[in-house]
Amino acid sequence: MTGQHFELTARDPGGKARAGLLRTPHGCVETPVFMPVATLGSVKALSQEDLRDLGVRAILANSYHLYLRPGCPEIAAAGGLHRYMGFDGMILTDSGGFQVMSLADLREVDDHGVSFRSHIDGSAHRLTPASVIEVQAALRSDCWTTLDVCPAYPCSREEALAALTRTMSWTDQSVPAVRRCREVCESLFFPILQGSTYPELRRRAAEHLGGVPHEGVAIGGLSVGEPKELTWSTLEATASLLPEGKPRYVMGIGTPEDVWEAAGCGVDMMDCVFPTRVARNGQVFTRAGRYNIGNASSRGNFSPVDPDCPCFVCRKYTRAYLRHLFNSRELVVYRLLTYHNLHFMAWVMGEIRRSIAAGRFEEAKKAFLSSPPFPPRGGE
Amino acid sequence: MTGQHFELTARDPGGKARAGLLRTPHGCVETPVFMPVATLGSVKALSQEDLRDLGVRAILANSYHLYLRPGCPEIAAAGGLHRYMGFDGMILTDSGGFQVMSLADLREVDDHGVSFRSHIDGSAHRLTPASVIEVQAALRSDCWTTLDVCPAYPCSREEALAALTRTMSWTDQSVPAVRRCREVCESLFFPILQGSTYPELRRRAAEHLGGVPHEGVAIGGLSVGEPKELTWSTLEATASLLPEGKPRYVMGIGTPEDVWEAAGCGVDMMDCVFPTRVARNGQVFTRAGRYNIGNASSRGNFSPVDPDCPCFVCRKYTRAYLRHLFNSRELVVYRLLTYHNLHFMAWVMGEIRRSIAAGRFEEAKKAFLSSPPFPPRGGE
Repeated sequence: MTGQHFELTARDPGGKARAGLLRTPHGCVETPVFMPVATLGSVKALSQEDLRDLGVRAILANSYHLYLRPGCPEIAAAGGLHRYMGFDGMILTDSGGFQVMSLADLREVDDHGVSFRSHIDGSAHRLTPASVIEVQAALRSDCWTTLDVCPAYPCSREEALAALTRTMSWTDQSVPAVRRCREVCESLFFPILQGSTYPELRRRAAEHLGGVPHEGVAIGGLSVGEPKELTWSTLEATASLLPEGKPRYVMGIGTPEDVWEAAGCGVDMMDCVFPTRVARNGQVFTRAGRYNIGNASSRGNFSPVDPDCPCFVCRKYTRAYLRHLFNSRELVVYRLLTYHNLHFMAWVMGEIRRSIAAGRFEEAKKAFLSSPPFPPRGGE
Repeated sequence: MTGQHFELTARDPGGKARAGLLRTPHGCVETPVFMPVATLGSVKALSQEDLRDLGVRAILANSYHLYLRPGCPEIAAAGGLHRYMGFDGMILTDSGGFQVMSLADLREVDDHGVSFRSHIDGSAHRLTPASVIEVQAALRSDCWTTLDVCPAYPCSREEALAALTRTMSWTDQSVPAVRRCREVCESLFFPILQGSTYPELRRRAAEHLGGVPHEGVAIGGLSVGEPKELTWSTLEATASLLPEGKPRYVMGIGTPEDVWEAAGCGVDMMDCVFPTRVARNGQVFTRAGRYNIGNASSRGNFSPVDPDCPCFVCRKYTRAYLRHLFNSRELVVYRLLTYHNLHFMAWVMGEIRRSIAAGRFEEAKKAFLSSPPFPPRGGE
């Protein structure tokens, strides 16, 4: 990747939030951006037409899942994941490291990779720092990440150091593969930064990245069970160690509130299953707080999910009808609630970007987070 | 209902097929028409925007299911089922008779109705010939049907006679309720005609209808397990007993082949869960036959489900991707396959109507049914 792929367009004068423009092989993405998760090449319950209508220009897909099913040869034969699934926006791929550790059976980790059995059919596989890059190159995703070791919280300093040391070694091992794969596929490289909640380990990780050619940084190891206060203090400290001119992506965040916090830490990209997963459990986001569509209060309630929302679901369907569909497990309801929640997230991200551009981010963040109906932070 | 609500626009010169126009409180419907099933007020996996895009102008909903959940008061409070679900085309409601018999617990049938317990929560209910009309009036559906007794196949002449006798008595008992409910809701009345596969019972049923004011006839008691040859001979004989000028609706038909057969018997309206149910099991209809999208032959196959289909699913998505989604149980696939199958059914019904209008129905039917890839009739 040559040339300027990331440009800062605005900085919040009173804090660390920033707005920018990320140029990828599949178009420009305004940041801060929230990327819905398409684990298996589908944002659950939505079609690619829905993503287009929602204005979604960036998604995350999971290398581990796609590597196992349908497999890289099929996606490569289609010309890559964009063509396979029919999405022409930016795709960032997770390295699979997190999934190997959390999903695979009988895994054995060594200095050069992970051997494991598929959680689907028990077949034997091995992923190495180089092979996960090759997987992502076969998928032709726009942003590649590195195989990493992501410890849960709480985690001793020794465990965190061991995970970081291995992650740094794997990052180094992936560099030649990145260089090789770039010859056929122009993608951005986002090494994953670990270090748990230990500031000096995060500093060591950031310093290590100084010797690794990269276009962006993926901040891993957060949103793994730690208290929210520790998430934000770690994230802010970590982001402040990173070069200004490269995009910062924090993995696994967020909720409507958390994306404000992450943006406030100077983060540019985020992904999380939260908005789509809770939608499938009936939870809807609104400008007056969240609630579950299945609640008795929706019975006989012919107002929209969110009276202030212009999405097609809110323009067309009532809470009473959606509650009936949800309680009857009618399939369409999962699409409708997912669509609405992502429309809400798009609105939130627009508010964040607009407030940064207007120099009033901290004020807008405070107003959003102090809306009384939202659950207190840490209350997930 | 006053005035001309059904108009024949064409008759097949070589057979009994006919084309027409049905005028309902919610628009005109060209016949023969296939009505997708929205049991609980939702055509499974589709939104009302999908129905609009598919050109679906008529659906069937189930009184029994909607009466139990969400219940008539909620739907009536919304102003009827059209407003409740957000569909402005014609809605025909099943009487619930079939569902009471097949789904409810502890049912007791007497001369004046059915007492039963809900299959959802065990609550006690009673439906009578009058109350099912009142339910349908509360739903404000466009076409109402009568409480009936629908015996399975095989069924002795005695059982068939008993079921018919009770159905005729219930039809008579429903007439005052129809008259009363019509004062607030202008709907078409379709008494259900029973008689199993016994021609002289069907004749008796048809004669009985001569004394009942009605706008159309619902032909019940078919598609209940009998051989297809018997379906068509019974349907043809029954249809020939009915007045020319009233629409004939056969319940529970059909497949892409069966709608040709039913139209050939002189039937104007049909409904069936088949196209939508099999879609959720991965079976797709195409101009070259049916197959299951999960089949190995879809692996690495980047052609559309049906290369001759102009629907958005076939324009956008490949067999390989849909197979991957289906095998991964990704929710969106149920919508995509359902949409395609209903698009196919709309095309088939258009072919039927166009061929009747052009005086070449029998020829078109033969061509469609002799396409070798379709499974032989009776092969469901």
